[in-house]
Amino acid sequence: MTKILLDTLGLDKGYKEVVKAGVNALKQNENIEICFLGDCGNIKKELEMYEKKFLKETGKDLFDFVTIINAPTEISCNDIPTKAIKEKQDSSLVVGFEELKNGYDALISGGSTGAVLAGGFLKIGRIKGISRPALCPMLPTKTGGKVMLIDCGATVDAKPNNLCDYALMADIYFKSVMGIESPKIALLNNGIEENKGNELVKTTYQSLKQMPINFVGNLEAREFLSGNADVVISDGFSGNVLLKGTEGAVMMVLSMLKTEIKKSFVCKMGAIFMKKAFKKLKSTLKTDNHGGSIMLGLKRTLIKVHGSSTHTAIEVAVKQAIEIKENKVLEKFEEEFNKRLENN
Amino acid sequence: MTKILLDTLGLDKGYKEVVKAGVNALKQNENIEICFLGDCGNIKKELEMYEKKFLKETGKDLFDFVTIINAPTEISCNDIPTKAIKEKQDSSLVVGFEELKNGYDALISGGSTGAVLAGGFLKIGRIKGISRPALCPMLPTKTGGKVMLIDCGATVDAKPNNLCDYALMADIYFKSVMGIESPKIALLNNGIEENKGNELVKTTYQSLKQMPINFVGNLEAREFLSGNADVVISDGFSGNVLLKGTEGAVMMVLSMLKTEIKKSFVCKMGAIFMKKAFKKLKSTLKTDNHGGSIMLGLKRTLIKVHGSSTHTAIEVAVKQAIEIKENKVLEKFEEEFNKRLENN
Repeated sequence: MTKILLDTLGLDKGYKEVVKAGVNALKQNENIEICFLGDCGNIKKELEMYEKKFLKETGKDLFDFVTIINAPTEISCNDIPTKAIKEKQDSSLVVGFEELKNGYDALISGGSTGAVLAGGFLKIGRIKGISRPALCPMLPTKTGGKVMLIDCGATVDAKPNNLCDYALMADIYFKSVMGIESPKIALLNNGIEENKGNELVKTTYQSLKQMPINFVGNLEAREFLSGNADVVISDGFSGNVLLKGTEGAVMMVLSMLKTEIKKSFVCKMGAIFMKKAFKKLKSTLKTDNHGGSIMLGLKRTLIKVHGSSTHTAIEVAVKQAIEIKENKVLEKFEEEFNKRLENN
Repeated sequence: MTKILLDTLGLDKGYKEVVKAGVNALKQNENIEICFLGDCGNIKKELEMYEKKFLKETGKDLFDFVTIINAPTEISCNDIPTKAIKEKQDSSLVVGFEELKNGYDALISGGSTGAVLAGGFLKIGRIKGISRPALCPMLPTKTGGKVMLIDCGATVDAKPNNLCDYALMADIYFKSVMGIESPKIALLNNGIEENKGNELVKTTYQSLKQMPINFVGNLEAREFLSGNADVVISDGFSGNVLLKGTEGAVMMVLSMLKTEIKKSFVCKMGAIFMKKAFKKLKSTLKTDNHGGSIMLGLKRTLIKVHGSSTHTAIEVAVKQAIEIKENKVLEKFEEEFNKRLENN
């Protein structure tokens, strides 16, 4: 049984989208329970709209699998994260973190990234031996696979030992969840040669070489989505630049193409013929289909989805949470990092 | 008169592309002289092919405006840059740097980035008062303008004072060359709030606020090509990640679209109708049309073009070199940084 908390506040599309995701997730997955956090009245009313259809489709009573906790205050992007986590006791996030600590397996939120990170640090804490947690989005590659970026912003001033811990976590995650026997782990750098990079990556390179992982060397940002690596290791600052730079460039190309199409009737006609290709492209690139960024290294599963997410992203995030639970990823982290502590 | 050195070695397309660029540049611009560096015999033979047509079109003798210096050795990407610059005395780059020091205005090369940077540091040197030089590509924005990224890899372990020097240089460059009265200068960061970022950018932010420039605050990588900033300040490592990540994402979208189009006859038909839109998109995105990365902060103009450049990129780079000379950018750097030294 995987017990999952869904924060209904903070998403651009509002709580209804989260409720929809939760109901869909219950249809798609056996052996899960969902707890919604937010405005109790709103959530209940929304759930009731799904109740009959759920019963008809699954033969089960929706309310046997859901709980609602009233926590109607939102921590917004304008709040100072650590302050809000300490002070906004009735916020969906703070209540969520308390519940997460006390028995739930995972918390999924589309709220303020800063507050999600701060809550993870302050309320949940790290697994023993892991120097820093990391925020890890998954992206599509040109070859049809996926690549994990670790870290995209949890630790902006990272040290070499942090990056080595990331490598070990990603290795375990990929082996357990993705079923890849020997995940290719690369280090984000400004060149591929061993002597390239700033002090941080030069030192990290030497340590990664010694680790029992499939370290494939440096990777330039240009190759991020090439499929040449399963995991890309980075400090949180550069990782954030890579992630958002990639998003920005994709958006720019699509928006420029749209502008050009609108300029000519012939192009507009062409675009209609090309509908299928555009649809496939959009679906591949859509961040929604790749779930959320998992915060690896904490004692519980914490997943941050984009504020602009639709229900799809949350449904994928629920799947991620289930996979982490069922493949005992956190237990393996504990075991592996404990071993390392004992050996040092 | 702007005297420009063109390195004919190191480009994927070979010396012929550089000679073509040089001849075109002489047609397009008054008051310049071109010196080609590389294999003298090859260059001469190639130039002779253009001689008649040049005379016919311009009424001038091509060889009145070109010089050739025999320097047939190439510094490749496999050479260790600093070592090669010290040892390969007959290489086109080393000879080029000597000539640049002794009277030429600009050197344009598509050779090894490491060697170009090392040569700039070791052979040319910085303008007094500028703590570090920076490599500055120009990219197209969504709004049809241009954005300068400063630095994309000259200094991977930058300090706050380096970033402040970049801001001042970019400010002068944009005012002089681009004719923008009050260029919008932004700091690359992982969030827009003032308290965001790693130690480097947090400290830099406070200094930039005090400077007599139009500092518009933090900018996320997602907004790089939005047109919201004329200049984006970054350490060389993150800047490199941003530049190459952007390139990689653009390539990925275009290649994925191509793959999808090929899958269906109808899509292929559509693509034919859309030819005009694709052509415009490609032309906007093509790095060739935006010249090279200028290395700002040195006593002479040094421009690195992409190894995969066509003659167009080199022709644009020649224009950049002329603009720097005619607008007295280096003199303004000297004056401004001297003033700062005197005031401190």
